[in-house]
Amino acid sequence: MPTRRPLPLDRVRIHDRFWAPRQATNREVTLPLQYRILKETGRIDAFRLAWRPGEPDRPHQFWDSDVAKWIEAAGYSLATHPDPDLMARVDEVVELIAAAQQPDGYLNIYYTVVEPSKRWTNLRDMHELYCAGHLIEAAVAYYEGTGKRRLLDVMCRYADHIASVFGPGEGQRRGYPGHEEIELALVKLYRATGVERYLRLAEFFVNERGRQPHYYDAEARARGEDPGAYRFRDYAYNQAHLPIRQQTTAEGHAVRAMYLYSGVADVAAECGDDSLMAPLERLWENVTGRRMYVTGGIGSSAHGERFTYDYDLPNATAYTETCAAIGLAFWAQRMLLLDPAGTYGDVLERALYNGILSGVSLDGRSFFYSNPLDVDRLAWEAASEAQRHEFDSPERQGWFRCACCPPNVARLLASLGAYVYGEDEETAYVHLFVGSTAYLHLGGREVALRQETDYPWGERVRIRVQPEFSDRFTLALRLPGWCLAPHLEVNGAPVALDGLVDRGYARLRRVWEPGDIVDLILPMPVERVRAHPRVTADAGRVALQRGPVVYCLEEPENGANLHALSLPEDAPFEAAYEPDLLGAVVTVRTEGERSMAGAWGGSLYSAERPAVEPVALKAIPYYAWANRGLGSMLVWIREG
Amino acid sequence: MPTRRPLPLDRVRIHDRFWAPRQATNREVTLPLQYRILKETGRIDAFRLAWRPGEPDRPHQFWDSDVAKWIEAAGYSLATHPDPDLMARVDEVVELIAAAQQPDGYLNIYYTVVEPSKRWTNLRDMHELYCAGHLIEAAVAYYEGTGKRRLLDVMCRYADHIASVFGPGEGQRRGYPGHEEIELALVKLYRATGVERYLRLAEFFVNERGRQPHYYDAEARARGEDPGAYRFRDYAYNQAHLPIRQQTTAEGHAVRAMYLYSGVADVAAECGDDSLMAPLERLWENVTGRRMYVTGGIGSSAHGERFTYDYDLPNATAYTETCAAIGLAFWAQRMLLLDPAGTYGDVLERALYNGILSGVSLDGRSFFYSNPLDVDRLAWEAASEAQRHEFDSPERQGWFRCACCPPNVARLLASLGAYVYGEDEETAYVHLFVGSTAYLHLGGREVALRQETDYPWGERVRIRVQPEFSDRFTLALRLPGWCLAPHLEVNGAPVALDGLVDRGYARLRRVWEPGDIVDLILPMPVERVRAHPRVTADAGRVALQRGPVVYCLEEPENGANLHALSLPEDAPFEAAYEPDLLGAVVTVRTEGERSMAGAWGGSLYSAERPAVEPVALKAIPYYAWANRGLGSMLVWIREG
Repeated sequence: MPTRRPLPLDRVRIHDRFWAPRQATNREVTLPLQYRILKETGRIDAFRLAWRPGEPDRPHQFWDSDVAKWIEAAGYSLATHPDPDLMARVDEVVELIAAAQQPDGYLNIYYTVVEPSKRWTNLRDMHELYCAGHLIEAAVAYYEGTGKRRLLDVMCRYADHIASVFGPGEGQRRGYPGHEEIELALVKLYRATGVERYLRLAEFFVNERGRQPHYYDAEARARGEDPGAYRFRDYAYNQAHLPIRQQTTAEGHAVRAMYLYSGVADVAAECGDDSLMAPLERLWENVTGRRMYVTGGIGSSAHGERFTYDYDLPNATAYTETCAAIGLAFWAQRMLLLDPAGTYGDVLERALYNGILSGVSLDGRSFFYSNPLDVDRLAWEAASEAQRHEFDSPERQGWFRCACCPPNVARLLASLGAYVYGEDEETAYVHLFVGSTAYLHLGGREVALRQETDYPWGERVRIRVQPEFSDRFTLALRLPGWCLAPHLEVNGAPVALDGLVDRGYARLRRVWEPGDIVDLILPMPVERVRAHPRVTADAGRVALQRGPVVYCLEEPENGANLHALSLPEDAPFEAAYEPDLLGAVVTVRTEGERSMAGAWGGSLYSAERPAVEPVALKAIPYYAWANRGLGSMLVWIREG
Repeated sequence: MPTRRPLPLDRVRIHDRFWAPRQATNREVTLPLQYRILKETGRIDAFRLAWRPGEPDRPHQFWDSDVAKWIEAAGYSLATHPDPDLMARVDEVVELIAAAQQPDGYLNIYYTVVEPSKRWTNLRDMHELYCAGHLIEAAVAYYEGTGKRRLLDVMCRYADHIASVFGPGEGQRRGYPGHEEIELALVKLYRATGVERYLRLAEFFVNERGRQPHYYDAEARARGEDPGAYRFRDYAYNQAHLPIRQQTTAEGHAVRAMYLYSGVADVAAECGDDSLMAPLERLWENVTGRRMYVTGGIGSSAHGERFTYDYDLPNATAYTETCAAIGLAFWAQRMLLLDPAGTYGDVLERALYNGILSGVSLDGRSFFYSNPLDVDRLAWEAASEAQRHEFDSPERQGWFRCACCPPNVARLLASLGAYVYGEDEETAYVHLFVGSTAYLHLGGREVALRQETDYPWGERVRIRVQPEFSDRFTLALRLPGWCLAPHLEVNGAPVALDGLVDRGYARLRRVWEPGDIVDLILPMPVERVRAHPRVTADAGRVALQRGPVVYCLEEPENGANLHALSLPEDAPFEAAYEPDLLGAVVTVRTEGERSMAGAWGGSLYSAERPAVEPVALKAIPYYAWANRGLGSMLVWIREG
């Protein structure tokens, strides 16, 4: 298989009406805000290593990663939008990090000031290698975005140290992280530096995982603990229950799973290891065919933030951590590199426009950790404090004690350009429909593609093809799985898709002239989406989807008790662009019915049929919910 | 108000085809089985006080109550079915208990052998007064069932001791139990002995509860604990957040709430305290109008085994502890004594035929702790051990570590006769329709009533009235709330109900002759029951009910994926008596539809409408589910 790599960010400019404003908000509001919070909460200054036992504000084991993800996001942003103030700010933090590095290259706040004697003694529970991974990702992003090597050099030294500690050699530890992340980071470091040692260490971590006798058992015993007393009960929690090649279902903590699968895909690509493809495909099929919400959210249960079992997709208690949906996008991006097939692009798109984007408010100032599909404000307000702990807040928060999600959204938005296109020797790929310009390298040839589109609201995607000179190559356009009747034109002339489509991509192979125009028309009727009959939570219900956007009913338009609403099977839909609503969205209007609580009387149960009234319903994009104060929201609407 | 008391058990004989066999099983199978388990698990021998620190099998803080409830059940059973072997066995246990009594009258296993220095130091969390209450109930039941005073005398001494420790006097503790129970027990002891001190102590516990400054705060501080660190967060958990007269909603642990409200009703009745009626009626309205399942189950959440908030009635995670439904029956019985109104009898009947009876298997050998209304076997089997801890086992168990429910079912079944009738100076009440003979005392007059009926399967209840001599009095028959068109005949002649009905009871006042026959015909079409539109869990769904019996779909007749089924709005029902099924039941057949998983294909979501097939559905009584191995079950069926 060809080794495709993601496009460097400086080769893609996004200039559409949908994503470009979100990126601007991310750059102008979210990044400065998160810097201030990182500063105020002591996370940045913790790198000064000044904390001493007994003092308040003890550094937490994954503070390093919060700062790292912010640097990473800044690096991505700087690649396309130079900003000397932001760069100066990052450089300051980089110096703190550099100064925190120990003489042997080691670099971790917690294990330098809190438990300095316990380095590498608890890979299972602690986030030591996870933090290292995020710092490595930050270093690579900042280097690629600015050309500055300072942090990259620091992290190479740390990676060298880690490579000396871990490995199959004598005196080395055969361990691997409890929270995966460093695997994919080491592949990035390898790609940035060309140092193969980093790739081999990633490969080691991937291959060592889940072997017997189990490293976490031995490690626990070495700490004087009973391995059987592990609080998450089994190593499926961190995907270490089996070697990766024997895993068939997505298990455990959903974010960890996504980071692992992404790292495995990276190793498969760079090592050319075909034996990893079958497990990756099996796991992909399991996640996306049985364990994914219609929003692209994953991880059904708050208990362990984890996958549960096939078709278990409860809506009100959906955990669907923002980071997990982002992780799914990471994995999809890597699968597209390995094998450009429509399923990967479809899932990437589903997560991006729905379960990821819902993670951040329109103003860029607040964030969801979990992204449920059913919120009942009346229940939330009626619930006691103790009961509320059973589910998550239905309002976005400015920050979290466990603050993984906010900077994760920031880095995803800042790096969106890397997800839109793909390239190899012969083919230019358009994976996503985002108004943007990309400079692709097909072997030695430069080809610029310029997309013009109002996607996801408009149905037309225009692509201007600009090779340096007339040249034969393939332009591969993803035909979204949600689109039942795509239509293609080249220079105004319709092109029949028969015979042109390979696994979800229309492959236009021809001699392209500078200035050629390709139009892809993707009709977007409002669809009633239904879930597999085994999904008990969605039985008798439909979700509304238009294009890639999943809709929801929210309280401002539809009242508080959304479960009293139903949608007749023949109700018509009307989609309308509303430029002044929720940052400009297409809304969906229809006619439904409401069971009237007022007409019901006092009894809890009755053989009487409840009175219903006709009611105008209006759905908004799911990603835009919870931007108008606390209120009810519902994705899956009762039909009939 | 007149002080009505429950009928002594020896004045009611049950001889129908529905309950009499369940009582026989209870007597012949359950009671011997539970004795064996109490013996084998060390609960009985713990009264020997032989346990010493460091030994295994440390007595638990509520073992006393498990043994007590078994004695109580035996006492009830012996009242109508003398059994020398059973009596000898109880006497042996009574002697152990008597020998465990301390010189000052104190009697509690845990606080005698495990923490002897800590008597009465933690009323909030420990079950010291709760155990005392159950032992008192046992003593009264055994005394009334056999005439034997031995345990009654022991418990009077203990009650005297408790009355010396607790009270408003100088040097007395102003505390009250964290788990209510002793209040209602003390009223029973007062009724059995005539000693008013016991009634006053019950009254003290009721009135002291929830006062400020709060006893549990002071008690925690005296233990050197921070009252704010209480694990259940607030005293609503044990209904001590407010004085009872200020309580308006049913809060906290459902069993505790029921035992408290029952005790409050007893105190109201015996003390003639009208000021307790308004809170009791408010709480009744809240529980039965907003927080009760259609099965009569209560307590929506396993977290704290507690009430949550209005209309929060999730089906799969319903906790609905068997003991809580039994507690609701206790409370309803007491409300009927205070105020014979149909709502109390209706709820009593709903709990008895559904959420209580589901707590025990048909063979009397296994028990449910929680009684959910929706079980998905496929999910249960797919769930990991860790996930299963989030809900309860869908199979009845022979016993539990926390073993409150099994002996609670046993004592309820053995004492069923006390729930069927009521009496006061002028009125004979028929609250429940159970083939039985009762000997009532209306003032000085003896009136025998003999019910002949196939209830709950048959629609006709025949009551033979046998006063000693012709006499004028009122026969008050409950007209069940579920019955839309009851029909009444006296000696074969129809009696118009107009003007005869007072709050759910048909009051036949006339001169009754020995041999008069009253026929009450209660037409029992199968009804589609709907829940209040605020109950989100039941939106768009119906439960099937025929007479007082709530039905469910179970896997043997309807397949495993019950959520794939729906019931068209016009589907007809056919009820049929099946003598060989599940101990003889009326089943309900109808025609439904099934979404076909097989025809769906591999994708998780689709804009295609799922293929449906017509399917014959057959519902069984909810109480009889889970008697044929592990399988799916569903009460609320999708309609349309």
